Amino acid sequence: MTANPIRPTIPLDAPGKAHGFLRLPYSRNDSAWGSVMIPITVIANGQGPTALLTGANHGDEYEGPIALQQLAWEIEPEEVTGRIILIPYLNSPAFRAGTRVSPIDQVNLNRAFPGKPDGSPSQKIADYICNTLVPMADVVLDYHSGGKTLDFLPFAAAHYLADKTQQEACFAAVRAFGAPYSMMMVEIDAVGMFDTAVEEQGKVFVTTELGGGGTATARSAEIALRGAKNVLRHAGILSGGIELAGGSRMLDMPADDCFHFATCDGLVQSLVDLGDAVTAGQPIARIWPKDRSGVAPEEVRANRDGLLAARHFPGLVQGGDCLAVIAVLV
Amino acid sequence: MTANPIRPTIPLDAPGKAHGFLRLPYSRNDSAWGSVMIPITVIANGQGPTALLTGANHGDEYEGPIALQQLAWEIEPEEVTGRIILIPYLNSPAFRAGTRVSPIDQVNLNRAFPGKPDGSPSQKIADYICNTLVPMADVVLDYHSGGKTLDFLPFAAAHYLADKTQQEACFAAVRAFGAPYSMMMVEIDAVGMFDTAVEEQGKVFVTTELGGGGTATARSAEIALRGAKNVLRHAGILSGGIELAGGSRMLDMPADDCFHFATCDGLVQSLVDLGDAVTAGQPIARIWPKDRSGVAPEEVRANRDGLLAARHFPGLVQGGDCLAVIAVLV
Amino acid sequence: MTANPIRPTIPLDAPGKAHGFLRLPYSRNDSAWGSVMIPITVIANGQGPTALLTGANHGDEYEGPIALQQLAWEIEPEEVTGRIILIPYLNSPAFRAGTRVSPIDQVNLNRAFPGKPDGSPSQKIADYICNTLVPMADVVLDYHSGGKTLDFLPFAAAHYLADKTQQEACFAAVRAFGAPYSMMMVEIDAVGMFDTAVEEQGKVFVTTELGGGGTATARSAEIALRGAKNVLRHAGILSGGIELAGGSRMLDMPADDCFHFATCDGLVQSLVDLGDAVTAGQPIARIWPKDRSGVAPEEVRANRDGLLAARHFPGLVQGGDCLAVIAVLV
Amino acid sequence: MTANPIRPTIPLDAPGKAHGFLRLPYSRNDSAWGSVMIPITVIANGQGPTALLTGANHGDEYEGPIALQQLAWEIEPEEVTGRIILIPYLNSPAFRAGTRVSPIDQVNLNRAFPGKPDGSPSQKIADYICNTLVPMADVVLDYHSGGKTLDFLPFAAAHYLADKTQQEACFAAVRAFGAPYSMMMVEIDAVGMFDTAVEEQGKVFVTTELGGGGTATARSAEIALRGAKNVLRHAGILSGGIELAGGSRMLDMPADDCFHFATCDGLVQSLVDLGDAVTAGQPIARIWPKDRSGVAPEEVRANRDGLLAARHFPGLVQGGDCLAVIAVLV
Amino acid sequence: MTANPIRPTIPLDAPGKAHGFLRLPYSRNDSAWGSVMIPITVIANGQGPTALLTGANHGDEYEGPIALQQLAWEIEPEEVTGRIILIPYLNSPAFRAGTRVSPIDQVNLNRAFPGKPDGSPSQKIADYICNTLVPMADVVLDYHSGGKTLDFLPFAAAHYLADKTQQEACFAAVRAFGAPYSMMMVEIDAVGMFDTAVEEQGKVFVTTELGGGGTATARSAEIALRGAKNVLRHAGILSGGIELAGGSRMLDMPADDCFHFATCDGLVQSLVDLGDAVTAGQPIARIWPKDRSGVAPEEVRANRDGLLAARHFPGLVQGGDCLAVIAVLV
Amino acid sequence: MTANPIRPTIPLDAPGKAHGFLRLPYSRNDSAWGSVMIPITVIANGQGPTALLTGANHGDEYEGPIALQQLAWEIEPEEVTGRIILIPYLNSPAFRAGTRVSPIDQVNLNRAFPGKPDGSPSQKIADYICNTLVPMADVVLDYHSGGKTLDFLPFAAAHYLADKTQQEACFAAVRAFGAPYSMMMVEIDAVGMFDTAVEEQGKVFVTTELGGGGTATARSAEIALRGAKNVLRHAGILSGGIELAGGSRMLDMPADDCFHFATCDGLVQSLVDLGDAVTAGQPIARIWPKDRSGVAPEEVRANRDGLLAARHFPGLVQGGDCLAVIAVLV
Repeated sequence: MTANPIRPTIPLDAPGKAHGFLRLPYSRNDSAWGSVMIPITVIANGQGPTALLTGANHGDEYEGPIALQQLAWEIEPEEVTGRIILIPYLNSPAFRAGTRVSPIDQVNLNRAFPGKPDGSPSQKIADYICNTLVPMADVVLDYHSGGKTLDFLPFAAAHYLADKTQQEACFAAVRAFGAPYSMMMVEIDAVGMFDTAVEEQGKVFVTTELGGGGTATARSAEIALRGAKNVLRHAGILSGGIELAGGSRMLDMPADDCFHFATCDGLVQSLVDLGDAVTAGQPIARIWPKDRSGVAPEEVRANRDGLLAARHFPGLVQGGDCLAVIAVLV
Repeated sequence: MTANPIRPTIPLDAPGKAHGFLRLPYSRNDSAWGSVMIPITVIANGQGPTALLTGANHGDEYEGPIALQQLAWEIEPEEVTGRIILIPYLNSPAFRAGTRVSPIDQVNLNRAFPGKPDGSPSQKIADYICNTLVPMADVVLDYHSGGKTLDFLPFAAAHYLADKTQQEACFAAVRAFGAPYSMMMVEIDAVGMFDTAVEEQGKVFVTTELGGGGTATARSAEIALRGAKNVLRHAGILSGGIELAGGSRMLDMPADDCFHFATCDGLVQSLVDLGDAVTAGQPIARIWPKDRSGVAPEEVRANRDGLLAARHFPGLVQGGDCLAVIAVLV
Repeated sequence: MTANPIRPTIPLDAPGKAHGFLRLPYSRNDSAWGSVMIPITVIANGQGPTALLTGANHGDEYEGPIALQQLAWEIEPEEVTGRIILIPYLNSPAFRAGTRVSPIDQVNLNRAFPGKPDGSPSQKIADYICNTLVPMADVVLDYHSGGKTLDFLPFAAAHYLADKTQQEACFAAVRAFGAPYSMMMVEIDAVGMFDTAVEEQGKVFVTTELGGGGTATARSAEIALRGAKNVLRHAGILSGGIELAGGSRMLDMPADDCFHFATCDGLVQSLVDLGDAVTAGQPIARIWPKDRSGVAPEEVRANRDGLLAARHFPGLVQGGDCLAVIAVLV
Repeated sequence: MTANPIRPTIPLDAPGKAHGFLRLPYSRNDSAWGSVMIPITVIANGQGPTALLTGANHGDEYEGPIALQQLAWEIEPEEVTGRIILIPYLNSPAFRAGTRVSPIDQVNLNRAFPGKPDGSPSQKIADYICNTLVPMADVVLDYHSGGKTLDFLPFAAAHYLADKTQQEACFAAVRAFGAPYSMMMVEIDAVGMFDTAVEEQGKVFVTTELGGGGTATARSAEIALRGAKNVLRHAGILSGGIELAGGSRMLDMPADDCFHFATCDGLVQSLVDLGDAVTAGQPIARIWPKDRSGVAPEEVRANRDGLLAARHFPGLVQGGDCLAVIAVLV
Repeated sequence: MTANPIRPTIPLDAPGKAHGFLRLPYSRNDSAWGSVMIPITVIANGQGPTALLTGANHGDEYEGPIALQQLAWEIEPEEVTGRIILIPYLNSPAFRAGTRVSPIDQVNLNRAFPGKPDGSPSQKIADYICNTLVPMADVVLDYHSGGKTLDFLPFAAAHYLADKTQQEACFAAVRAFGAPYSMMMVEIDAVGMFDTAVEEQGKVFVTTELGGGGTATARSAEIALRGAKNVLRHAGILSGGIELAGGSRMLDMPADDCFHFATCDGLVQSLVDLGDAVTAGQPIARIWPKDRSGVAPEEVRANRDGLLAARHFPGLVQGGDCLAVIAVLV
Repeated sequence: MTANPIRPTIPLDAPGKAHGFLRLPYSRNDSAWGSVMIPITVIANGQGPTALLTGANHGDEYEGPIALQQLAWEIEPEEVTGRIILIPYLNSPAFRAGTRVSPIDQVNLNRAFPGKPDGSPSQKIADYICNTLVPMADVVLDYHSGGKTLDFLPFAAAHYLADKTQQEACFAAVRAFGAPYSMMMVEIDAVGMFDTAVEEQGKVFVTTELGGGGTATARSAEIALRGAKNVLRHAGILSGGIELAGGSRMLDMPADDCFHFATCDGLVQSLVDLGDAVTAGQPIARIWPKDRSGVAPEEVRANRDGLLAARHFPGLVQGGDCLAVIAVLV
């Protein structure tokens, strides 16, 4: 059995605050003895639980990286009881390239878990996180947003789990996060996800979708930052009280027909915006041809009542792209 | 003197409604006798002025293309007195590629005017528009948005011109457009712009910035569509009355210090959102390093009081990118 | 065991005629929730056998796609007894890109069978075809041509099989196809081929090579279309009688020395054309250097008597490319 | 005035036979002091006229390069009265890359004449040929074929010229060439062509289109070789008699409506082949969609009676590509 | 079990001298029936041991290819007792591209052993070498240098092995090689290396690092050539006596802290050169920012006493690249 | 006449020490309102002459950038009488990419002078340097090395000029620089060079070639740094005395036959190293084929006596590349 070659440049269990890297040797044409360097910050003090917070699992999602950089800079050991491990750019090659998947091996990191210690660079990262860092943690918060091609209403989420005690602990953390929307999810295709890998180890796990389009707004970054602090306080690791900014509405995506796919390539005309109410049969988008004028657009109609919870972001669409997701308030 | 090789596949002066192409022969590796095809729709009826409406001057700006596709599909000749020439995808190679500049010659079409009849493909397009189509027009509306890398408060605009009668006619059309914001602009660097080429021919010219990020929302597309109809009605070409949706606030960008530039590469944290009020000296954005955690961010502060009118859109920034524009209400 | 994520958007077993897609979810940088869409047409009526017809297994071979598009458009359910499943662009990403192998994963689809349900996109396509569609079929016709880099005399072919009854059924279908040439083949390297995957399920299988060069002529497309109708009529699925256009000559490629390889890079001068008779030792091609004039070319001579059945198509060749195939009439 | 930096590595006026290069210094990232090397062969003997023969003006056309390599290898000085200058790969960067236009500067060499001595590499080549080599020549033969994207009936051609004596001399050379088809052409857009640059110097000029698809057949290469020898013999430079292989039929492309353009992107189904007779209104091609099955194709019909003289070669087409050319026999 | 498809074009066991290829069928977009061709020379005479000499395991390392080309050209069978198998360009696709890893499959060949007969092209090469050629050999010499991104003091090396008799035989061959430096190595990460694959078969194995930077000097090529002859003479295969050019100094890299990594991206300023003595704590390199002037550089200090044995070669560095290796003389 | 849009972010004439940028607005796909940022440092004190020092005119040459970064960091205003303007990365886009020519417009900056204020980005940089900064300067030092593809003996140089007083002033500065070699040059092709643009303004100009291969050694960087200080002291701008490290030998490249070009593509075997003496007719390099073993190499012989002053650096060469330069000691 091959050992994972990733090594931290700082101790992960020393008290105080340290900034370093997870170093993954990576031989390539432009550096025979090069490395992938993943920044990591550890803030530890006294006895207590460990939280692992990760951003940029997909490299084009920015709320997590911003929040974690700010926490790494601001939190002092004396505010901590236990340990906080912060990895703002989990998929650092993708983050530096501004892409969803890793430019090194074209792997979608969030479908590469539990990873392989002797696999491609992304598979090695997944293996190290899953088999070295997650076992150290009690609570894991992994940030997502829509990236450059999707846009979401901001929500935190937990999964329906076989272990109802674990499920309730997860959802309690989601409530503590305090995003404008919250969601309980059944993951249709959970294979390879970080979420699954963490939950199978019995940990408290929170995920999010906080916006998208390949940008972060002042508001979406603030949701991310406040949510992280709230989860850390909820876990008893960070001092201070939970701060909620207004209530959180419960969303649900109950069935496959929530998802609406483009039937052809073209120029997208959205007819409703995120958060707008829709009724079944209502036109929600048009697709115009890219090569001519004067013909009728394809029209996409809502499969069900609800509100627009996610949408395709770029102005152009390809047949088969997810164009819209309609969720229901519960 | 070489003649411009672009030819329309439909007559530009026949009554009725016709859809065709401006065909520009373009020999390339994958088609020795290929062409650039620019869709065009002409709707003409009776005697009256001519309006020329253009979208996708930059290929990643979508409000104009959507509005013009809808007009090309909906307007019937009997609603028209005069002529409407619609070119939803002026820079069609860039539009099809989803890029700002043309993938064929890397030219920024909006700095290529008045064009060259024997130049690169973009220069030929500029020459044909400027020297064949604009002379036919009385009113020209050219749509812009922020594209994939900028985001704007939605406004229509005209320029300060030496000919005050022309200036007033332009601004009257801006008022008719009815965007949430309106602006009178001094163009610092007007060389090569379509705007300048049109204004120098004494035409009524309206330009816009209606959003950005490489997407269009239902709301921003609606502003674009209503604005075009209003301008056409204001010009007496389209039947029906002007529809204004609330008032339009006057913006001004009075000086160079409205523009704030990134001082280094990194991850952007916006501290204010579009439309937020700011005061001079207030931090408006941070830039975090892409390669490490735990260090203080660069902080960008407001040069002046005002409101955030435009911002860098992608989550990553490079040194020298325009990070924010502060405008003032007048 | 992971389930294959491909889903048809139309029922595969309903009577009548339906056009839809095989949808394969495919997350990528330019569409986080994107899909590969493979067009499919099903025409079913009454009780009878099922035929599966596939084109563009390699994306740069065009006779199959043309014939299958025409059949999908023309055949009406009332002409059918049983079911016809038409997939004009089996390797749709490669077809859209005009390449032999898939631009998504660089996989040669015809060496990816029987596929993997959790593999790369091409491996998922192979698995779905092999394990979902082929089991529904009695007869499978998979179209090939030389693609952009080879050119062939037009032939249909079957393989020598251990099961002589199956072998005879396959060759009867080849005769029914009625191409100008027919062939019985021993596949040297059958691993991973669609052919093998189908034959191992005991099905009647016909393959073809109908031309090449990355184009289809009117004549080669007509051979493809008539061949498909003939196979469908031979199987009793399509009404009407078999139409043969002149006889079919039997070709054989009896040994490894039929294949002639380029011994260096250079400019190819063919000395014989497809169908020309050659005798052992006769010069059949020259290779001239790409970087100088005035030196003698490399000369390639025929290893055996026969006729030129296939040749390297592009004007330039690389050392190791197959330059010519000499077959014998039997 | 800047001097052209191209230098021959052999004398161009010495008796005998010499092989060398035209060396064009070209500084680039992968060779700071690199060069473009264009192979050249000069065969001279006694007093007599000079012929300049050029191939690969477009880098993906192969009949000329093959014929000129064979002549450079075979012709001995004692067969020559005067001088033969052979440049098999005029656009050598494009020839080595197998592309129509130069990969260095993306310039179409046959639209770059008369060139610029201080321009891009292609412009420097054009200038050197036009202003140094052509003035040495009495007869110029420049080979063309359809390249990778067009296919032609094989013909040699001359242009209608103001100087009727020159025109007749050119056409006499075309007749001597002896291709299966011959043509007198009015060049619609002659700006930048090598043809024009040569004719304006009063030289005898012959051009060809001898096939296409990015390949040469044994037959098309033989036409090219025999034609060159015939032109050289006709000019009294090469010993031996003109060899005609059957008659040459006169073609004409009398008007713009000979050219048929694709109206959309898609998969091409040719309904007639090169040399087939067509009548006005007859369907000559269909275009099927690349993204779906079951819809009617676009149909392209003949604008006029005639025979198919050229066609789009690749299986896929883009809107605006020339799909077919119908010529008439005269 | 799939058989490896690689076939030699010459017999590997015939007496005399033969030059040919290892031919690996490789279907790709630009040649459907293409091949990877790996040049090979076999020189055999009488009874005796077999030596296998390989260069360009990494495609950008040139001393081995030069030495082996010269041996293949110079050595005559009568100088040989036994057999010499020379493969100057083991990773021929990478060698032709001038890259470390194969451009075909992005695989680092020296981490792909023992290979897979049905894997990617690099894995097939590894399998063929490991399971067909190495079993024929008694002695294996595999050349390495630093490639384009590292530079080394010139040394030959053997590994510490469990079998001390084998280890001594290997080191005796290293001494015979006679490089300016010699080394005994513990390979930290031996998985996938050619070295390991050979040693596990009980063979005598010598490896080298002879310079770097993507070039070879006259001196470094001479070390490589003389070393190969010496090893062949030491093994009794080549006639003549061992020629040593001065003594060889023993180097050791005893611990992980010999390796110094860049802590950020930037411009490298080396403060010591290869072979210079350093003391612990001494600054050995600076890293200046690429985007600004006037700030202090990062400084890298020696972890230990020794001499500079290897260094990062390119002027720019990325965080995580190996910047320097300090070795000790023993 | 268009004004150059480049603006410094710091005053160029204020006393003290300031670090900033030359900002060139550059609209591109990934930043609509982006800029090229060129770092600049100005150190001024009292009355005295101005020196302009520039590095990375070609982006892959590193001695200049290192020396200028160190000067920008170390020199304090009190050591200065007059003004020092330091631009470590003149061609900053190429420097950041590690390429000779600019990745933005593929322009070789050192052939773009005197530039164009409305040209491509490189042309704008050339214009600003030439027409804004050089007029401020009395002495200009522009650093060069061989870059990634050439390697040089280290020398400083001046040109033979019509104005002998200016020439002597330049050569006095060369002597002051104190490189191991010095040279007086006749520039064959001086068009477009920075050198020419500076000399035509009557300034004292020094250029260098200090090594190459895309790296800098500790020794070559030290030559660069000492040389700059010496030139500044020689000009009376920097306090302290000139430090010479051993004598400087005078080199000359008297004729075109100093330059030796590769006659074919292949693998380079150098037979002499930089500084080695050679005699006319001596073999200095071999070129081995990249695609086969066992054939004789091309051999390149010295055109004249002298010493090897420059050589092609990469292990592979293309026909037409400069392989070697032989200089003579004078």
